[in-house]
Amino acid sequence: MNALDRIVASLARLPGIGKKSATRMAYFILDSERGYALALADQLRSLHDSIRRCSICGSYTDTDPCAVCDDPLRDGNTLCVVERPQDVRVIEEAREFRGKFHVLGGVIAPLDGVGADDLSIGALLERVRSSAVTEVILATNPTVEGDTTALYLQKILKSTGVRVSRLASGLPVGGDLEYADKLTLSRSFRGRISME
Amino acid sequence: MNALDRIVASLARLPGIGKKSATRMAYFILDSERGYALALADQLRSLHDSIRRCSICGSYTDTDPCAVCDDPLRDGNTLCVVERPQDVRVIEEAREFRGKFHVLGGVIAPLDGVGADDLSIGALLERVRSSAVTEVILATNPTVEGDTTALYLQKILKSTGVRVSRLASGLPVGGDLEYADKLTLSRSFRGRISME
Repeated sequence: MNALDRIVASLARLPGIGKKSATRMAYFILDSERGYALALADQLRSLHDSIRRCSICGSYTDTDPCAVCDDPLRDGNTLCVVERPQDVRVIEEAREFRGKFHVLGGVIAPLDGVGADDLSIGALLERVRSSAVTEVILATNPTVEGDTTALYLQKILKSTGVRVSRLASGLPVGGDLEYADKLTLSRSFRGRISME
Repeated sequence: MNALDRIVASLARLPGIGKKSATRMAYFILDSERGYALALADQLRSLHDSIRRCSICGSYTDTDPCAVCDDPLRDGNTLCVVERPQDVRVIEEAREFRGKFHVLGGVIAPLDGVGADDLSIGALLERVRSSAVTEVILATNPTVEGDTTALYLQKILKSTGVRVSRLASGLPVGGDLEYADKLTLSRSFRGRISME
């Protein structure tokens, strides 16, 4: 196995990248100026050192606490609970939510051996109890595991008296009824919003 | 721009990778054990040093001459002319061709400022004249530029008396007439093969 085959094998481990795409990427890197490969190598080498978990919300950050937790202009009364750090980025890019985040680190998935104890649920309760949080928005994915986890958190949070809500699930904006799956369609009926 | 944004920007330069895929890849690397990022970094750092162009055929290789040029069992009478080094890999994987290769380094594309002088055509003529080559198979892509380049090479090679052929173009195996584009379909008519 030569250097080219080795890098193809490494690149093919990336999500959504098969052997063909990995090969294409490797040749692109070879065809590009050497500086590109060296810059990417440096960035990979320092990635795990420069990026850590925020000690408050659990999101990836280069400063601790992260920019969101540290921002006095963000609404500390509303907490958005997500599965993974990348969900924070997606929500931030939508520029709709101005509160703070809490990263669970996954979802309850008994088949994968992930229980409630494996997630940062204790820290979530602690944050809700010890700060001025008035609403927790559960933004786990609209999947079986995400829904189960949301239901579990709702029960756990009941004792704190905080308001608990769940992101709306339904037809995607710009989508077409014809192409909506049955589950999404029935959700959009159950969650229909009065137009008065 | 933090370390995460920088690596996303670098990864998004790869072919077929947009900002979303690059972000997904960066988070995957962060979520993976540190050793993966370090191994990939090392491979990138040494790639341009370990892989060079074969001085005979122009393909990428870690030895010079490359394994194909150096293989006494390969048929030195047949030369397959391709646009880029990655085409050599694709043809090798099909395990149909047992001759040797010549990499042009591109195609004649006046609009992109690439003329015949920018390709390794002189070296091709030299190889044909000075060795036992009896057939040159032109395997440039079946595109306007690939066809133009093939036509140009055919004229140039005429003086050497070598047999010149072109890869067949037509319906892909396992394909469906209904989904074939007009140009491919008319090519498959013009190139039809007698079944006697």
